[in-house]
Amino acid sequence: MTLRTRFTERFGIDHPIVSAPMDLVSTAELATAVSRAGGLGLLGGGYGDEEWLSRELAAAAGTRVGCGFITWSIDARLIDTALSHEPAVIFLSFGDAGPYVEQIHRAGVPLVCQVHDLAQVEEALRIGADAVCVQGGEAGGHGKGTRSTFTLVPEAADLIAARRPEVLLLAAGGIADGRSLAAALVLGADAVVAGTRFWATRQAAVTRAAHARAVAITGDATRRTGVYDIVRGKDWPPVYTGRVVANDFVVRWHGHETELVEHLDAARAEFSHAVDADDVDLANMIVGEAVGQVHAIEDAGDVVRTMAAQAEDILTGGPLQRRPGAWSGSGSHP
Amino acid sequence: MTLRTRFTERFGIDHPIVSAPMDLVSTAELATAVSRAGGLGLLGGGYGDEEWLSRELAAAAGTRVGCGFITWSIDARLIDTALSHEPAVIFLSFGDAGPYVEQIHRAGVPLVCQVHDLAQVEEALRIGADAVCVQGGEAGGHGKGTRSTFTLVPEAADLIAARRPEVLLLAAGGIADGRSLAAALVLGADAVVAGTRFWATRQAAVTRAAHARAVAITGDATRRTGVYDIVRGKDWPPVYTGRVVANDFVVRWHGHETELVEHLDAARAEFSHAVDADDVDLANMIVGEAVGQVHAIEDAGDVVRTMAAQAEDILTGGPLQRRPGAWSGSGSHP
Repeated sequence: MTLRTRFTERFGIDHPIVSAPMDLVSTAELATAVSRAGGLGLLGGGYGDEEWLSRELAAAAGTRVGCGFITWSIDARLIDTALSHEPAVIFLSFGDAGPYVEQIHRAGVPLVCQVHDLAQVEEALRIGADAVCVQGGEAGGHGKGTRSTFTLVPEAADLIAARRPEVLLLAAGGIADGRSLAAALVLGADAVVAGTRFWATRQAAVTRAAHARAVAITGDATRRTGVYDIVRGKDWPPVYTGRVVANDFVVRWHGHETELVEHLDAARAEFSHAVDADDVDLANMIVGEAVGQVHAIEDAGDVVRTMAAQAEDILTGGPLQRRPGAWSGSGSHP
Repeated sequence: MTLRTRFTERFGIDHPIVSAPMDLVSTAELATAVSRAGGLGLLGGGYGDEEWLSRELAAAAGTRVGCGFITWSIDARLIDTALSHEPAVIFLSFGDAGPYVEQIHRAGVPLVCQVHDLAQVEEALRIGADAVCVQGGEAGGHGKGTRSTFTLVPEAADLIAARRPEVLLLAAGGIADGRSLAAALVLGADAVVAGTRFWATRQAAVTRAAHARAVAITGDATRRTGVYDIVRGKDWPPVYTGRVVANDFVVRWHGHETELVEHLDAARAEFSHAVDADDVDLANMIVGEAVGQVHAIEDAGDVVRTMAAQAEDILTGGPLQRRPGAWSGSGSHP
């Protein structure tokens, strides 16, 4: 049995599960593992490192994957590089995708716009996105952080149904297992985009110490901040902050950004050393609230299959639904 | 057909829907309408106005309702007043419920602790709560705002299942309709607590202008702030902020709290006048992100019945599940 949605039908895949295009973390190894398991894997083109992108696109050749970018930091040439490999989708987040719509559509590739509030959903519909991914503030990494998955998905679903019902809706932020996949579909999504859950797999380009920390902490352990953007010299538009583990570095500098700028050279040296040393008390760990539901570092293909099976089980009245204490429809499940 | 859960069974009610104890808004009229429709209505005892409480408890006599309070602002005498009316539950939010557990249990009344992160779930289990209500930051009114419904519900469900599986789990924050009720149950809740959705009913003690504004805005229109606590002289513990409509007053003062304190007398006069004049550009409108899904001011009983019917429909494979484009299990729904 498989859960069919408009997304699985449109893309000809088995499961309505997309792995997020996490900057440099979502390699060909991760994206192809997700696609081969019946989901759709995305490469994390991020800030636009062309050498990385070309290498990973080549490594993914033969398996259908998509490619995602941080819109404000890229240019048309980089999108052409991606398009030349016939990606399943181009996935653009954080910024105006308008200038790239025609270029992407001319190549016959669907455009997914990731957005963070209802006003941005309207904008994505206006410029001609084929799918809109709404990302709640519980997600790891950057976003506006002003809306949550639980309210944004149904509100976006209603807006899309009224304005451009052919547009697909993806839900991101907090997708951790089959329960959240099922819940997102119930709220009106056609598919989910999971970041943290795939970050915590053997195929992700994540260090050993970061994986170990992820298994040890709860979902309370993250927060939104801009301190790593300052120390990394990433010139993010001010509406965006990033959710990361609130480690020693974040606790020290968050709320003291002016002092951080005053001590930037020393902080950069410390940060750089921490990255080299895999010291996650100081180096940035970009994960969302769903990290609290990560209890092991698994195979990405297994994550896809398990997530899909659990969601199907929940939504089609399988054993989970009938577990003691769980809900049941008294009509059909006496 | 009705959705049965551990909550409906434990409380002997028809639908796993609780109306939030919104301070002074959740009157006997609202709470009894919810209970009579098969949910569980709570009186909004809030900061502990004993005259209000006694009047509303008397007005609710004959219908089973519960009673909620802002824990840090009340005392044992007020709880005794509530207990003397044999409430269905005592619902305590924001602060240490520990000092009241024995008093409440001695009266044979179940205690629900509303909490805002996983650490607070652990604390509620430790002190002996009979049910834990986890409230995501998308909710209207006060909270920590550090976690979201979408991630906190499943993480809390797993913790409760491991530690004290007999404890019930309620989900609050973003509950707007049958989709969010169904999603919350799928994520692991035994019932939902809806605030904004019942705030937007004819039975709620809400002004005409506030109701009109709620219908007109999207879920993007709210934000968390402490400016109304300053102007109202409510001495909230610093970890708590409140989600309200980001109206002119909030835009002017949020981020300028020091200046607000410097101009407190004038701001108080302006606020007080705005409340009297029902001017929602300046007076506080305490609603959550779910306000974007409020399109009409309805009867509270109809809200309960419609929400329950839609959730049942979704979870038992009714027409919503089979609408074009919605998910379907290809095994059982060919």
